[in-house]
Amino acid sequence: MKERIVVAVDAMGGDNAPGVEVEGAVAAARRWGVAIILVGDSARIEQELAKHQAQGLSISIRHASEVVGMHDSASDAVRKKKNSSIRVAFELVKQGEAHAVVSAGNSGATMAAGMFVLKRIPGIDRPAIATIMPSIEGHTLVLDVGGNVDCKPQHLAQFALMGQVYARHVLGKADPRVGLLSNGEELTKGNEQTREAHGLLKEAPFRYIGYVEGRDIFKGSVDVVVCDGFVGNVVLKVAEGLAEGIGAMLRREIGGRFLAKIGYLLARPAFEAFKKRVDYAEIGGAPLFGIEGTGMICHGGSSPRAIMNAIGQARQSVAKRVNDELVAQLRTTAVAFRTKGAGSAGSGAEVADQGVSEQRSS
Amino acid sequence: MKERIVVAVDAMGGDNAPGVEVEGAVAAARRWGVAIILVGDSARIEQELAKHQAQGLSISIRHASEVVGMHDSASDAVRKKKNSSIRVAFELVKQGEAHAVVSAGNSGATMAAGMFVLKRIPGIDRPAIATIMPSIEGHTLVLDVGGNVDCKPQHLAQFALMGQVYARHVLGKADPRVGLLSNGEELTKGNEQTREAHGLLKEAPFRYIGYVEGRDIFKGSVDVVVCDGFVGNVVLKVAEGLAEGIGAMLRREIGGRFLAKIGYLLARPAFEAFKKRVDYAEIGGAPLFGIEGTGMICHGGSSPRAIMNAIGQARQSVAKRVNDELVAQLRTTAVAFRTKGAGSAGSGAEVADQGVSEQRSS
Repeated sequence: MKERIVVAVDAMGGDNAPGVEVEGAVAAARRWGVAIILVGDSARIEQELAKHQAQGLSISIRHASEVVGMHDSASDAVRKKKNSSIRVAFELVKQGEAHAVVSAGNSGATMAAGMFVLKRIPGIDRPAIATIMPSIEGHTLVLDVGGNVDCKPQHLAQFALMGQVYARHVLGKADPRVGLLSNGEELTKGNEQTREAHGLLKEAPFRYIGYVEGRDIFKGSVDVVVCDGFVGNVVLKVAEGLAEGIGAMLRREIGGRFLAKIGYLLARPAFEAFKKRVDYAEIGGAPLFGIEGTGMICHGGSSPRAIMNAIGQARQSVAKRVNDELVAQLRTTAVAFRTKGAGSAGSGAEVADQGVSEQRSS
Repeated sequence: MKERIVVAVDAMGGDNAPGVEVEGAVAAARRWGVAIILVGDSARIEQELAKHQAQGLSISIRHASEVVGMHDSASDAVRKKKNSSIRVAFELVKQGEAHAVVSAGNSGATMAAGMFVLKRIPGIDRPAIATIMPSIEGHTLVLDVGGNVDCKPQHLAQFALMGQVYARHVLGKADPRVGLLSNGEELTKGNEQTREAHGLLKEAPFRYIGYVEGRDIFKGSVDVVVCDGFVGNVVLKVAEGLAEGIGAMLRREIGGRFLAKIGYLLARPAFEAFKKRVDYAEIGGAPLFGIEGTGMICHGGSSPRAIMNAIGQARQSVAKRVNDELVAQLRTTAVAFRTKGAGSAGSGAEVADQGVSEQRSS
């Protein structure tokens, strides 16, 4: 990677913007020597930047007068707020001033703006958002969690294609195992959607291992798990909800017991190590696949560490030329993966509309 | 409940049959004075029964020469193995010799046999299996987890109806909150299936609270969560897999640390209390809804305690006349809940077939 990688950071996106974004960006610039363009209210960004030792780091500011709120619709981001920080960030990529965008803002708006400004990769009908979940063995990539509900089998096949390229080149899995999420491993299981998708995927030019179950996500027996955005959201929310629930129930049980409290204190280093192991901040964000550029979407409540790691992941994605690899594979992949008109990039706006509502809290 | 409740126990179903079934049945008979008919290989059952103090308990044996294996198809249970323990158990209910069936066997076969022998309740198109998941506040009923994939909106509405009756009369929830599982709480979310189902459910004669997310299952903010059997299986398997994964990761972290080990020992009573709190054996089994009788389906690897508690739940379900209540509510419920021909019970065989494969490991 001779050329210095430039990441445009939507400084106004997160719940604690721009402070968290600026701190995370400074950390990433220092750690990886990546160039950062902070996009948003320049006065407020300068104020935050002044709090850090940013001398010698390649950090610039690009003013954007508008902000897309968590409750704005994605189409606002695309059509009305032409000078929103997220849209301007993607414009920087379009103009070749930046390689990637990182945002902790409205994920639907981020996805819609990315599609609208950068267009979809020909051959990909629906951009997707992937989440990286912890497993006993490491991590498992699950997509779509971006709200692509009512998917066609071809969409699932395309998600699989995008997921395995990312797993291979960014997550460092030599020959990623790709599974189709179903209600059982036997081929007699599944629904109409998965049965048709299986028919496409068994011809795939990558390592497709067939149906997998929800438990496989955490067993480390699969690297990329493919499902539609409705099911993907259920997976994500069930996992988050159960983890929180277990924590709350354990605290309640321990809280009432003196010895248990002491025991917990003694065991705390183990719990801390475990927390770190499963902390999304260590991963940073969720990659946005399928647009002509690189995007990372972070939790609205991201910590500076999460922002830093998301920038690191975006850097990896650019350095490993994930999209070039994806385009190359699409060229050689069975036409069956394509749906009619998938070749044409389209304005993204109509896709943004279908994606609008589903995206907001994904 | 003047009349003594009789539960037919499929003694041959589970992985450790008939030992576990017999032990659990003896415990239930002793605890609740419920009458038990153990169905299966009489010689082997007598052998097991001899190991327990069953004097004075109402426990009888009904011989059945065949067993439906975990890998038999549901239609085998219905058509070929006419003398299988699970089918004979349901015949006992049909002949009025028993009120309920409890089985730790092949759940698809149990569902199919129940449908074939006892028929569906008129107005219910698809019998469903519900799972009772732990929440911070108590428990949440989730259905369908029985493999009804590709559900019509009416099917989801019927699941909701059955679930709230059970929650009210067996789980003791005064006015159960029923939610439709979706990818977000806003009505702009959901897929075609949930949007249509919402249209039906907002007219429901019970407390329908709209869309809920996967995390709500564990928050105690909803009592009955409705989804199709594909999504329900994903919820179940993700929860099981994550719980196992968290346990394994924590053990690994604690294992490497001396003080943490001591801490864990001190905290163990809290962990044990927590385990008990979330142990499915404390609940026993998953109720089978929608057939003209009462059925409880247990894990294949059930403990005697799980079998005992499943018998206890079946007893409650019979004592509270859950099916009578369901039929009464169906009479007064909007026709919109019905699909064509839902009124006719049908032989169950064709439904068994549609359910065959999906049911096996559910």
